Amino acid sequence: MKKLFAEFFGTFWLVFGGCGSAIFASHIAPAENGQIGILLLGVALAFGLTVLTMAYAVGHISGGHFNPAVSFGLLAGGRFSAKDLIPYILAQCIGGIVAAAALYTINGGTGGNAAGAFASNFYDSAVYFGKSYSLGQAFLAEFLLTMFFLIIIMGATDKFAKGKFAGIAIGLGLTLIHLISIPITNTSVNPARSLSQALFVGGQATAQVWLFWVAPILGGILGGLIYKFLLQKKEE
Amino acid sequence: MKKLFAEFFGTFWLVFGGCGSAIFASHIAPAENGQIGILLLGVALAFGLTVLTMAYAVGHISGGHFNPAVSFGLLAGGRFSAKDLIPYILAQCIGGIVAAAALYTINGGTGGNAAGAFASNFYDSAVYFGKSYSLGQAFLAEFLLTMFFLIIIMGATDKFAKGKFAGIAIGLGLTLIHLISIPITNTSVNPARSLSQALFVGGQATAQVWLFWVAPILGGILGGLIYKFLLQKKEE
Amino acid sequence: MKKLFAEFFGTFWLVFGGCGSAIFASHIAPAENGQIGILLLGVALAFGLTVLTMAYAVGHISGGHFNPAVSFGLLAGGRFSAKDLIPYILAQCIGGIVAAAALYTINGGTGGNAAGAFASNFYDSAVYFGKSYSLGQAFLAEFLLTMFFLIIIMGATDKFAKGKFAGIAIGLGLTLIHLISIPITNTSVNPARSLSQALFVGGQATAQVWLFWVAPILGGILGGLIYKFLLQKKEE
Amino acid sequence: MKKLFAEFFGTFWLVFGGCGSAIFASHIAPAENGQIGILLLGVALAFGLTVLTMAYAVGHISGGHFNPAVSFGLLAGGRFSAKDLIPYILAQCIGGIVAAAALYTINGGTGGNAAGAFASNFYDSAVYFGKSYSLGQAFLAEFLLTMFFLIIIMGATDKFAKGKFAGIAIGLGLTLIHLISIPITNTSVNPARSLSQALFVGGQATAQVWLFWVAPILGGILGGLIYKFLLQKKEE
Repeated sequence: MKKLFAEFFGTFWLVFGGCGSAIFASHIAPAENGQIGILLLGVALAFGLTVLTMAYAVGHISGGHFNPAVSFGLLAGGRFSAKDLIPYILAQCIGGIVAAAALYTINGGTGGNAAGAFASNFYDSAVYFGKSYSLGQAFLAEFLLTMFFLIIIMGATDKFAKGKFAGIAIGLGLTLIHLISIPITNTSVNPARSLSQALFVGGQATAQVWLFWVAPILGGILGGLIYKFLLQKKEE
Repeated sequence: MKKLFAEFFGTFWLVFGGCGSAIFASHIAPAENGQIGILLLGVALAFGLTVLTMAYAVGHISGGHFNPAVSFGLLAGGRFSAKDLIPYILAQCIGGIVAAAALYTINGGTGGNAAGAFASNFYDSAVYFGKSYSLGQAFLAEFLLTMFFLIIIMGATDKFAKGKFAGIAIGLGLTLIHLISIPITNTSVNPARSLSQALFVGGQATAQVWLFWVAPILGGILGGLIYKFLLQKKEE
Repeated sequence: MKKLFAEFFGTFWLVFGGCGSAIFASHIAPAENGQIGILLLGVALAFGLTVLTMAYAVGHISGGHFNPAVSFGLLAGGRFSAKDLIPYILAQCIGGIVAAAALYTINGGTGGNAAGAFASNFYDSAVYFGKSYSLGQAFLAEFLLTMFFLIIIMGATDKFAKGKFAGIAIGLGLTLIHLISIPITNTSVNPARSLSQALFVGGQATAQVWLFWVAPILGGILGGLIYKFLLQKKEE
Repeated sequence: MKKLFAEFFGTFWLVFGGCGSAIFASHIAPAENGQIGILLLGVALAFGLTVLTMAYAVGHISGGHFNPAVSFGLLAGGRFSAKDLIPYILAQCIGGIVAAAALYTINGGTGGNAAGAFASNFYDSAVYFGKSYSLGQAFLAEFLLTMFFLIIIMGATDKFAKGKFAGIAIGLGLTLIHLISIPITNTSVNPARSLSQALFVGGQATAQVWLFWVAPILGGILGGLIYKFLLQKKEE
């Protein structure tokens, strides 16, 4: 039960902190009082720090997944038990949705119902960052990024690696993933994070949320398998 | 006595560095000589680094609270002794106020008496970041953020966790908190930090400072209790 | 064979993440919806984080070079075996080129054929950052930066040093190198990274790619020798 | 002798990387091709990373001072031997000056002879950041910041502290110091860094360089004494 609480609070924090920084602090215009917001760079840093902080805070309790694609990938890589998969994913989704409700309350609504509103993910839209990436391009990006995220997670927590640094490597790995792909899809690599935002936006955001379940989970599974079969040292 | 010196210098540094970066370096306009300041992102980083640096410098002496809400939260979580509470809070407040006096001297005044001037906290004001958050929204944000701050602190310093990394997790956790909430309240989660600025600004800033004592302390206490009862492993 | 897979995936990630952040996320104009991209600062951070994450993920497998100049430098410094040099460099170049193909697909082309397009390196051009640096100035910058990169790598992995932190020091060292030199050459210090971009751009980018093999490799070799002969403690 | 080489290369890197990032990468105007430079935030990060990287690379050889004020402060704090003081300071100044010569070559000159040109320090000037700070305000800032820098260094390397993290705490501590004070003095806290730039600028920069020797050295000495007498645990 403590494991599920850890996943609940960890995913709450991921959505509250990552999506929250995007909603409250990234849109400030340059000219207002000479103040400039935290930029996409700050949002990327925020997402990574939610995982870094919770990995050190509750990672020793639940393993610190906070993400259904990570749970699937670790299962494929032989590091996670199938019987825990559904409870973990439920705890993650509930944590994300409660966090989104808190963001909704503080923000006074979502500010739109297009994909990309609130901090929802999107594809095939030039509304937010001026260039449109197709469904296929968005899928490829989410797939590859989640695949590498799992390679990082599997490798950094390998018993032959410097395991205590895993929280830093994995957290900053998520920052890096956002530095690459916010303009492409608003960056998911995490189905629970995508679902939590889409539920409060509706419309196009809900219609597109399937991609942010399928691509990250498939990428995560492949990443887990790549590490297990191509990279991991054999047991003696 | 060394403990109180450590809290004094640590909180001095938190206010001097965090509030100082906001006062001196965040307001530079884009067009001046092609120079742009450190942005809200730099302020967020500065606050976190004050705690990260002092956690490694004097954390082994006093535990490294530098914040009355942290002292209350650790007390609620069973990690801090009630008899030290008042001396710690006094050392923190005095350290913060002396730091604010140094900032006042270097800055040549506070530049206004509205909440938000100097680096004071605020609610229900659109003056600084163009959007106003109500008393209730500000309270909820400060409450939740301090609650999670204490979960991070309790967890990262748990004996089952990777304790030497706590300074990184806690310091960057404070950076994350600022990435989310500078536009909402200028971010407190620390009553001593809020008091130190309000004293030199007066007026509306002083009138609003109560919220930045009540919300962080209540949130901190709940965070300490959540970790203790829902997450912490039982002693054998 | 696992070593070569590790170098392949590591260099793929370096090019996909570092060059990808430059291609997708750095060019967003300030006025678009109040959104600002990740800036050169974010690109610098991204390159460093690709190495930091892969150093902790697969560094225990291959040593984590991801860069022909690093392999040459470690060979000169007595830390790497000559018989592995060619296979490592091949794995690095193939990993970089496959990553560039993925970037090309997601981006829908390269957006130009001048040096600097896509994320290719350049010298003697004022097109991208408004000031032109000559061939000699660019060579000196790449040479010195790679020399110091190898001093950092040799030192941080020295058995007398705090070896587990090497991934942080080396990764953030690459961030620092980019903070200095993106406006000078778009920063290479890595022949595989330069080749991967030039192949997809052609024209001027291909014509200039020689400098980004010669200067980093010579600088890397000198860095390895400096550490070995001037800094490294003698074995007893 | 290896110690002096370590201080030479370390201070070379501090000046080449820190001042270099300011000279090459911070002045890029927002409107040029939608590119924005690394901002003062990037410069602050660069200075810190020079120290972080060299602390892990050569800190085990020389202790990693790279700064006359640090050598004075550690002497006052009882952690450094008086007989090494002059050789260390000479190695630091020579390393800084050679680095400045390399920057001068790559940059094609200094771009002015006012204090603040190249990456020189200044006081009492509104040329660079739009607000002027008096000699006294600049002195107080440099004094206090170096004092806290030494408290961080003394504390993070204390045998009761988590010593392996000292490179992170000290390096990011220097980043923090720059986040606060670049607009005040261009941030010194390091006489060798200030001298190296002033020599190539001349005029007003040379006339003001005294302050960036006196204030940091006095602040550093006081910081060393504060840690030794008010904070450090007694030996049994």
